Amino acid sequence: MSMSMPAELWPDVQPDAARRLMLAGVESFARRGYHATTTRDIASAAGMSPAALYVHFPSKAALLFAISRSGHERVLALVERAAASSDDTVDAMRDIVEQFVMWHARRHTVARVVQYELGALPEDEYRVVADLRRGIERIVRDLVERGLEEGVFTVSDAHTAARAVLSLGVDVARWYSDRARQTPEALGREYGELALRMLGAKTS
Amino acid sequence: MSMSMPAELWPDVQPDAARRLMLAGVESFARRGYHATTTRDIASAAGMSPAALYVHFPSKAALLFAISRSGHERVLALVERAAASSDDTVDAMRDIVEQFVMWHARRHTVARVVQYELGALPEDEYRVVADLRRGIERIVRDLVERGLEEGVFTVSDAHTAARAVLSLGVDVARWYSDRARQTPEALGREYGELALRMLGAKTS
Repeated sequence: MSMSMPAELWPDVQPDAARRLMLAGVESFARRGYHATTTRDIASAAGMSPAALYVHFPSKAALLFAISRSGHERVLALVERAAASSDDTVDAMRDIVEQFVMWHARRHTVARVVQYELGALPEDEYRVVADLRRGIERIVRDLVERGLEEGVFTVSDAHTAARAVLSLGVDVARWYSDRARQTPEALGREYGELALRMLGAKTS
Repeated sequence: MSMSMPAELWPDVQPDAARRLMLAGVESFARRGYHATTTRDIASAAGMSPAALYVHFPSKAALLFAISRSGHERVLALVERAAASSDDTVDAMRDIVEQFVMWHARRHTVARVVQYELGALPEDEYRVVADLRRGIERIVRDLVERGLEEGVFTVSDAHTAARAVLSLGVDVARWYSDRARQTPEALGREYGELALRMLGAKTS
């Protein structure tokens, strides 16, 4: 199990066998891609039989959905919390970017599956995840718009700017590794600063 | 063949069968991932027999390498050209970002394979591609450093800033589609502006 998958991942998933299958799924999907991974591969990585996998997840797609939904819910929750962390729009935006970037750095293996295997989700499951994504984007866009009204941000298009802010964080999942020169916290702080500049905020 | 693969892709690749195989490889790798794609899938998408594929590419890995190397060479060439397009550091950086973003939007299917299937390259081939990537990063970092010396940029860390600038463009490959609300050109211009702000440049 790589260092990007600390024991506290999915503490709420029960029983432990389901959690182990999600961990094994993340590792396998991240390494070879969803389509090249068989349920047999995943079960064996979790030290279980294929039959035991089906007790917890009726299909490979159901396992991907569990991973993807839980990742998106986690990110939505931390973005919501960060947005509400301060009445000051600049401070709230800084906190969002820091939290978002830290999550993608710290959980880079999970984040890769969450961000890059969306296309493999069946239609109904994709809709659930797409809803969560729109929720995340809406919070960031609303905050950009609030900042524009208050005159603390100065971008020409809130939609593009919000997307660019999130893009910076998402791409961290692609390149970050446990050998990166910055800790997730240090990277989060630097990116928070860069994102605020991008939005035209006057920062210290 | 999707709209992201216009006929002018790889005009220099000869014979036409090799070019068709690269196009089919890109489509298949982008849709299902490298590991889930067989040489038979690719040959059949190109309307050829597996044996005919091997005439041009000795293996699936050789085909991925041809796609990846050519994509990286193309991007390095346009970044080099943009960097040399103006003696003014701010103008040169704007041109780099515009060109880089436009390429990733216009060629988003190719770019996805180029950016997200690096891990599937065999070691020696990976080294060739990693060299090209370092070349691209170096040009951007050197220009950030030049801007810092000239006092036109004001970031605290040139390495992180250069990476963030490129990250913005790379992530375009993930989310851009032919149904995106902005043309590659319009997106390039907006991102050029956002990247310059991130670097602390005074722009009009």
